[in-house]
Amino acid sequence: MEGGTSRPAGPPGLSAYVALSQALGLAAVAATGAWLGRYRGGVAWAGALRLNVHPLCMVVGMVFLQGDALLVYRVLRKEAKRSTKVLHALLHGSALLVALVGIAAVFEAHGEKGIAHGYSLHSWCGLAALVLYVVQWLLGFGFFLFPGAAFALRGRYKPLHVFGGVALLVLSLAACLLGITEMLLFNIRDSYSQFAPEGVLANTLGLLLVAFGLVVGYILTRDDWKRPPLPEELALSMDFKTLTEGESPSGSQ
Amino acid sequence: MEGGTSRPAGPPGLSAYVALSQALGLAAVAATGAWLGRYRGGVAWAGALRLNVHPLCMVVGMVFLQGDALLVYRVLRKEAKRSTKVLHALLHGSALLVALVGIAAVFEAHGEKGIAHGYSLHSWCGLAALVLYVVQWLLGFGFFLFPGAAFALRGRYKPLHVFGGVALLVLSLAACLLGITEMLLFNIRDSYSQFAPEGVLANTLGLLLVAFGLVVGYILTRDDWKRPPLPEELALSMDFKTLTEGESPSGSQ
Repeated sequence: MEGGTSRPAGPPGLSAYVALSQALGLAAVAATGAWLGRYRGGVAWAGALRLNVHPLCMVVGMVFLQGDALLVYRVLRKEAKRSTKVLHALLHGSALLVALVGIAAVFEAHGEKGIAHGYSLHSWCGLAALVLYVVQWLLGFGFFLFPGAAFALRGRYKPLHVFGGVALLVLSLAACLLGITEMLLFNIRDSYSQFAPEGVLANTLGLLLVAFGLVVGYILTRDDWKRPPLPEELALSMDFKTLTEGESPSGSQ
Repeated sequence: MEGGTSRPAGPPGLSAYVALSQALGLAAVAATGAWLGRYRGGVAWAGALRLNVHPLCMVVGMVFLQGDALLVYRVLRKEAKRSTKVLHALLHGSALLVALVGIAAVFEAHGEKGIAHGYSLHSWCGLAALVLYVVQWLLGFGFFLFPGAAFALRGRYKPLHVFGGVALLVLSLAACLLGITEMLLFNIRDSYSQFAPEGVLANTLGLLLVAFGLVVGYILTRDDWKRPPLPEELALSMDFKTLTEGESPSGSQ
């Protein structure tokens, strides 16, 4: 399928799945905007619309940007490992910043309206996801970027880091689905059961989020789509193995 | 760590994680029972309590039994592949039967009370999970048990079957979390924000479900915990490879 070249652009099928993930992610962001704009009065920091900043930021940050941060090792296959790693950290960092704005919005909006904080399953799951996301980012930065751990230690932490990345995306998506359900039951409880257009749109957003998670999860867990080590990385890891007789780092991350 | 024996009982750590998964799964079933028994009047097929059959069946079937069906290849490492496969299919089949009782309960209870069917994100996600679960079961049965497909075809379908299995458990868990949120907002909307004990118990159930999914997902995706092929399976697959020159089946499933 890939012909006889030694370094094909990428495994067959990967580009199509990545394109599909981006279409689904952008559709989810657009559906969130449409829902808030058409039925919830729009998005603004000032006044009563501040609450609407929350769902928009969480879908952009904790779903779209977080998902794309996970995909960089599958998409950028020929770039140097270190620059790919820096992009991975930057995208996760941006996701975190956007998410923090979203969290600030809901806490301020609740405070102004005298609504209690943190009582719902949505908030428990969402806060757990956010706290673990910060921990995972700090551990990843410390182990793989600065100061960086010994190869043997990196090799032992890496599988946990990879599993944690997928698990945090899934937990973030679950928190989003819970938020959609809460928002609909608070705002359109009676017409929701009559299949009101707002309910159908928000449910469709929910399915788009599920589909985004499925496609990103499929890309990440397919063994033959993992980033193969570049020739110079293989040579480097062999050198280290010889020097240390410890574990050699595997090529993909 | 494993000494020099050729066939250890299992990789180190696996038993502890499996035990933890069972403790979390049983705790989730117990928390569901406690919630329904203590705050929702109990569970019965007759009368108004029929609706409560739904959450109990879904947690027992689509979470606990489904999760355990996925774990059999990790737990039973020395048994013949075919009997492990039959147990896998039987556990999934039991999960499906219990889930169908739960679905019948909610449709009948809604019908009696004149509540509309299938309008919420919970029902969209839950029905999607159930339909895909039936499809996955039928495909798995057809490919791997009866009539069974050619080795090359099994080898191509297997990664999709494995990914689908984990994805369906996750989607089922998400549907459960949505159901918990719906039930709380319908029943205790005002006291929920005051941290009413029922709300805290149901949220805790939600976290137990998340933890069950995390532990089962971790066990299933850890490469070195996959079931290694038995010596006779390796010999068989080599024979088939020689005969057919097609792909050989990999040992773990």
